Amino acid sequence: MRVTAEAFEAMVREHIPMSQMLDFAVERMEAGEAEVRLRFGPLLSRPGGIISGPSMMILADTALFAAVVSEVGLGVKVATTSLNFSFLKGAPQVDLLGKARLIKRGRRSAYGEIVITSGEDPEPVCHATGSYAIWS
Amino acid sequence: MRVTAEAFEAMVREHIPMSQMLDFAVERMEAGEAEVRLRFGPLLSRPGGIISGPSMMILADTALFAAVVSEVGLGVKVATTSLNFSFLKGAPQVDLLGKARLIKRGRRSAYGEIVITSGEDPEPVCHATGSYAIWS
Amino acid sequence: MRVTAEAFEAMVREHIPMSQMLDFAVERMEAGEAEVRLRFGPLLSRPGGIISGPSMMILADTALFAAVVSEVGLGVKVATTSLNFSFLKGAPQVDLLGKARLIKRGRRSAYGEIVITSGEDPEPVCHATGSYAIWS
Amino acid sequence: MRVTAEAFEAMVREHIPMSQMLDFAVERMEAGEAEVRLRFGPLLSRPGGIISGPSMMILADTALFAAVVSEVGLGVKVATTSLNFSFLKGAPQVDLLGKARLIKRGRRSAYGEIVITSGEDPEPVCHATGSYAIWS
Repeated sequence: MRVTAEAFEAMVREHIPMSQMLDFAVERMEAGEAEVRLRFGPLLSRPGGIISGPSMMILADTALFAAVVSEVGLGVKVATTSLNFSFLKGAPQVDLLGKARLIKRGRRSAYGEIVITSGEDPEPVCHATGSYAIWS
Repeated sequence: MRVTAEAFEAMVREHIPMSQMLDFAVERMEAGEAEVRLRFGPLLSRPGGIISGPSMMILADTALFAAVVSEVGLGVKVATTSLNFSFLKGAPQVDLLGKARLIKRGRRSAYGEIVITSGEDPEPVCHATGSYAIWS
Repeated sequence: MRVTAEAFEAMVREHIPMSQMLDFAVERMEAGEAEVRLRFGPLLSRPGGIISGPSMMILADTALFAAVVSEVGLGVKVATTSLNFSFLKGAPQVDLLGKARLIKRGRRSAYGEIVITSGEDPEPVCHATGSYAIWS
Repeated sequence: MRVTAEAFEAMVREHIPMSQMLDFAVERMEAGEAEVRLRFGPLLSRPGGIISGPSMMILADTALFAAVVSEVGLGVKVATTSLNFSFLKGAPQVDLLGKARLIKRGRRSAYGEIVITSGEDPEPVCHATGSYAIWS
């Protein structure tokens, strides 16, 4: 059954307490793709007037999780098995957009990538890949 | 000049707001190595009675950052350029210990690894590697 | 100055002896993108009737190298600083196609990804990312 | 049953044709650890008087494979699922030594790291991590 962005967001907010600290919005999720916006707030800052690495890592993890759930549904157990991040340039203190898509969807695993952009700048500030284990 | 764990911890708490949400303690940092404890709290949980991936990612980033700063000092600018995480098994909801050490220390870059263990279990729950850019 | 696929291939064959063992062809390289074909031969096999991991790693490295050279030219020194591979499924013993594209092109570094497909199957058998240091 | 370095080397030479191009020797393998020497030859060179990245990638893959086989035996099917490489400095054209050790050994997967050093230099030229799927 198709999982709406609203249902996914509600589940994350209820079951993953750290997500309640962050002002994020799942803007789209379907067919192995997802877009998640992380609105800038003081919690995301680090010295140099930029956004901290962990802020981008949480955004990437959430966006890829949404992409996986868009394929397998909410009732199925999934767990991140690996995440690889490349921080490509400093992200100014504005909203971030994370776009995730699955590259491989197997029966017991999934693999995908996430591109994070900042504000209106089309050049990514971070690129990540990740893999998930899937249980029935 | 040698950077004490106290000075590093104070700097992180002052300048990286997200770290204020987490109950961590830098237990040791010297000569390219660091040990950071993350005390369990409800903010770290995720479904399944385990600790969330982002909790481990923040711990790994902090521990490797401490290892880098133990070598270059507090006045030097550093930035994470990549982080690769392997989540090896579910971490029960107890304290985590992140041990970081530099594998390579160049003039303009550093590379190291982080092993995260949970409670008294010697088997790691997460292994990560990361690289840093260093400016003068 | 634009580097042709022929010029790049000739340089690789002359200066990287291991490449002479492999029957590859640079089919396209321009503007930070490259496509390289690796024709199947007995040297690439491994047990299970599939192609060995190192065959795909050499293909990925060559394709991303071509993508970088298409941007910086042949006279500039470049060196791989990292490569991350995900082997997504067994590759049957037919030709492989590696498509590389740069995601970030800085003055002193570049970062990109490579997708490897097998024969006519559109599902990738391998996905990789890599970073390069660039000297003047 | 314990797998000797000789039995492993013979299996690799027979079933992985690319390994026949390289002059390597498995110097030790037991209990999830392995040391593999790659003797320098013209096939390994690249411009700049150093050793090519693929040479190090093949060495790392072989060493980690030996570490896995030392634990699971020769009759069990294993396949690399991911490999992450950091090239830390140029490797001069002398012998390389790859030391692999398993960090995690599960029933259906294994994860480990490889450190590659060059000649007598204790500083690594390459660090890698990798994961393996294990079938019964």
